Amino acid sequence: MEFSSKLLEKAVNEMAQLPGIGKRTALRLVLHLLKQPKEQTQFLAESLQTMRNEVQYCKSCHNISDVELCEICCNEKRNHQIVCVVEDIRDVMAIENTGQFKGIYHVLGGKISPIDGVGPSQLNIVTLVEKVSSGRVAEVIFALSSTMEGDTTNFYIFRQIQQYEVKTSTIARGISVGDELEYADEITLGRSILNRIPFENTMKSS
Amino acid sequence: MEFSSKLLEKAVNEMAQLPGIGKRTALRLVLHLLKQPKEQTQFLAESLQTMRNEVQYCKSCHNISDVELCEICCNEKRNHQIVCVVEDIRDVMAIENTGQFKGIYHVLGGKISPIDGVGPSQLNIVTLVEKVSSGRVAEVIFALSSTMEGDTTNFYIFRQIQQYEVKTSTIARGISVGDELEYADEITLGRSILNRIPFENTMKSS
Repeated sequence: MEFSSKLLEKAVNEMAQLPGIGKRTALRLVLHLLKQPKEQTQFLAESLQTMRNEVQYCKSCHNISDVELCEICCNEKRNHQIVCVVEDIRDVMAIENTGQFKGIYHVLGGKISPIDGVGPSQLNIVTLVEKVSSGRVAEVIFALSSTMEGDTTNFYIFRQIQQYEVKTSTIARGISVGDELEYADEITLGRSILNRIPFENTMKSS
Repeated sequence: MEFSSKLLEKAVNEMAQLPGIGKRTALRLVLHLLKQPKEQTQFLAESLQTMRNEVQYCKSCHNISDVELCEICCNEKRNHQIVCVVEDIRDVMAIENTGQFKGIYHVLGGKISPIDGVGPSQLNIVTLVEKVSSGRVAEVIFALSSTMEGDTTNFYIFRQIQQYEVKTSTIARGISVGDELEYADEITLGRSILNRIPFENTMKSS
């Protein structure tokens, strides 16, 4: 792609470094900005820089926060004995949206994935083990995605904390609500039969 | 969507104003920036701002340029008597990539589209008419997309310049190279038969 302006080319190249944004999409976005008032570009640029430079991570759960201790960790109405281990902040948002969880979180910041060069030391595992070893945690819920990396991470953490007196659980795997059985994969269907639940339980959930 | 940080929320909201970027995608992009070195966000923000504030439009063809007169308009080897009218700078890039056009361009900056509130006065039509009326243009090629808006714009410009002695043409509409006839729409196929070309011509093009 040849550009008639170096400034334009530079902006497109920077934009195209974002995941899922190719050169063509980047050009479309940049040309859109050119058609909008200058303030829009300024607000976008400033908000990105301010966010990148000033955002903090909760020192307890590593969730993104504007203060030292995030709102969830500060909230005394929540059950601080139940810790839900998630991969990143998007999972916290997804679980919070369900309104079904009243404990606290622990954000790992990724999954163990040797292929991507991510080892246990790059994740927030040490602080989780410290939290558990202090004896203030009654249950650890693993809520990572059900992939090879997710399972590996679960197992790694489980090995680190099994010496302490703590209950561990994982979120239920099964057929999604609204899904047709015939399209479900065998492993999921098999597990959903093995881990069947009392029928009365389904009537409790909204 | 509830965010645990106002800074994050602001950045996501600004990002989500770009076309085709929803809140979820915006969050994914912003979280990606958080994982990268601070410099990447800084470079992105700075390049966008510099581009928005300093980019210039060629005073002759309205193409994006870093100088007053763009490279194409400055190029004395090009035929300044043939003007190709296009919607925006992406079309210039697309046509330049073919290497088949040696004339100059005129970038309208959009198409006449009452639904979107775009009238002729918002487009660079006056300067085109001036260029034609000066008598230095021998042929105007309409290269707008073949839509209702494109055809309207073509016709509007044609009415403005038909009083001057200038040849007008439009890029050929027909079956794309590599396309199967059975999937072509009737209008395109019909036109491609009406506007058939001597077979020898197809052997000239690469």
